[in-house]
Amino acid sequence: MTTSYSHADLVASTASQLRAAIRSDSYTGHTAGLAAGKLQCNLAILPETYALDFLRFCQRNPKPCPLVGVGDTGNPALPTLAPDIDIRTDVSKYRVFLDGAFSEEVTDISQHWSDDLVTVALGCSFTFENALLRNGVPVRHIETGRNVPMYRTNIDLVPAGPFSGKMVVTMRPIPEDQVSQAIEISARYPQAHGAPIAIGDPSEIGISDLASPDWGDAVEIRPGEIPVYWACGVTPQNVLLGAALPICITHSPGHMLVSDVAEDAETTILPNA
Amino acid sequence: MTTSYSHADLVASTASQLRAAIRSDSYTGHTAGLAAGKLQCNLAILPETYALDFLRFCQRNPKPCPLVGVGDTGNPALPTLAPDIDIRTDVSKYRVFLDGAFSEEVTDISQHWSDDLVTVALGCSFTFENALLRNGVPVRHIETGRNVPMYRTNIDLVPAGPFSGKMVVTMRPIPEDQVSQAIEISARYPQAHGAPIAIGDPSEIGISDLASPDWGDAVEIRPGEIPVYWACGVTPQNVLLGAALPICITHSPGHMLVSDVAEDAETTILPNA
Repeated sequence: MTTSYSHADLVASTASQLRAAIRSDSYTGHTAGLAAGKLQCNLAILPETYALDFLRFCQRNPKPCPLVGVGDTGNPALPTLAPDIDIRTDVSKYRVFLDGAFSEEVTDISQHWSDDLVTVALGCSFTFENALLRNGVPVRHIETGRNVPMYRTNIDLVPAGPFSGKMVVTMRPIPEDQVSQAIEISARYPQAHGAPIAIGDPSEIGISDLASPDWGDAVEIRPGEIPVYWACGVTPQNVLLGAALPICITHSPGHMLVSDVAEDAETTILPNA
Repeated sequence: MTTSYSHADLVASTASQLRAAIRSDSYTGHTAGLAAGKLQCNLAILPETYALDFLRFCQRNPKPCPLVGVGDTGNPALPTLAPDIDIRTDVSKYRVFLDGAFSEEVTDISQHWSDDLVTVALGCSFTFENALLRNGVPVRHIETGRNVPMYRTNIDLVPAGPFSGKMVVTMRPIPEDQVSQAIEISARYPQAHGAPIAIGDPSEIGISDLASPDWGDAVEIRPGEIPVYWACGVTPQNVLLGAALPICITHSPGHMLVSDVAEDAETTILPNA
């Protein structure tokens, strides 16, 4: 017997309550706007053989891949992010990839878990978007209830082992007189992609048409607004796919791992981890 | 035929010129006050078998172990820190440890290098000390030409594999009315230990006598000054020793790896790495 919750039901829940609802499959929706003030994370689970190179890859590409937590091999806990996390059940929707190809979308990965897997948590853009909104900088895709537009760029990533490729960015149109404020605010969150990667002309970073994003939804750029580009957490997912690992598990877009770490904390490590 | 340089000879040299002098054994001294404005690094070189756990350890203990660069296995280059680094020759003095015991201090580790070794570079306190001095906050051990006092504490580190232990801290006496400024300034440098770990009473973090540091030199605490404690790069060295790896190589205290990365850069990754 499972109670089913809507997004609205959970808006006032704590991160721990939200994880409990997700764990029991009482909530399988996206996590945007939930557990206010707590760090949410992109997720990558991969075999230990590849973990050293993947951590090197993240260290070398800190803007798209801000490392905020790493599990012990075979251990589904992430005590530095929250004392009760079981990564097999605590994300509302996962994507499983086998040999680099999408296999299935599931709400529980217990049957895929093994002693060989390492969990890697990476920061996500919700953190700086919340900060932009709190400071009166508009975020168009949130205003209009869409998914952020994401684009492949011509910006090379620093390779590590089998991991390489080009950076993926998100784009948010920002009023010209608020661009410097948006830069300053997002720069305060290095664990969540930090300051923008580029500003203005999309062709400078290899984007041919802002109206045709590679992922997500196109958004309107109004007169007096400048397109601003941030490094995106789809970058590591894309790179993992390209490496065609025997198995790799990620969260589904928007269905993030919700931690107990405060978005404004100096580090992403809980004081009594 | 080798020209020998003094510390004073190199004060105006670039980081690259300084590395060249060190590489040719023309300079074997400490690097404090050299290559102004460039990030200097603590060094740990260890076998690949232990590297994944050591990177997990650093990720989980970001205050004492801020990860600023990681080499490929067997490769002495660190292109994200400077294009020309050869880690076998570019540090002025190394310490070699075999099975957890000190073996020798050398100026070149070419004869110890192997295809199995991984280089890890960690941020160091020079960065925030320079920022304190630039902003008029006195740093006693620098004023008096001493080594910073370092103390074992009772603060548990978050373990990873064979790596665990207690945090080591440095102490700097700061005038009471400048403590909040010192906190704010050092917090800007998460790649260099960031904000202090503790302030005031040493017994709160398990230090029994400030006059008897475990490493370095005691410094005077004058009336109106408060002892302020920062996480210290000796922590990972200490933890590596405790793990008794078959081989482990570190820099000698004060003889840091000098990078081309600006101390004020948003990340420690060079733009064209």
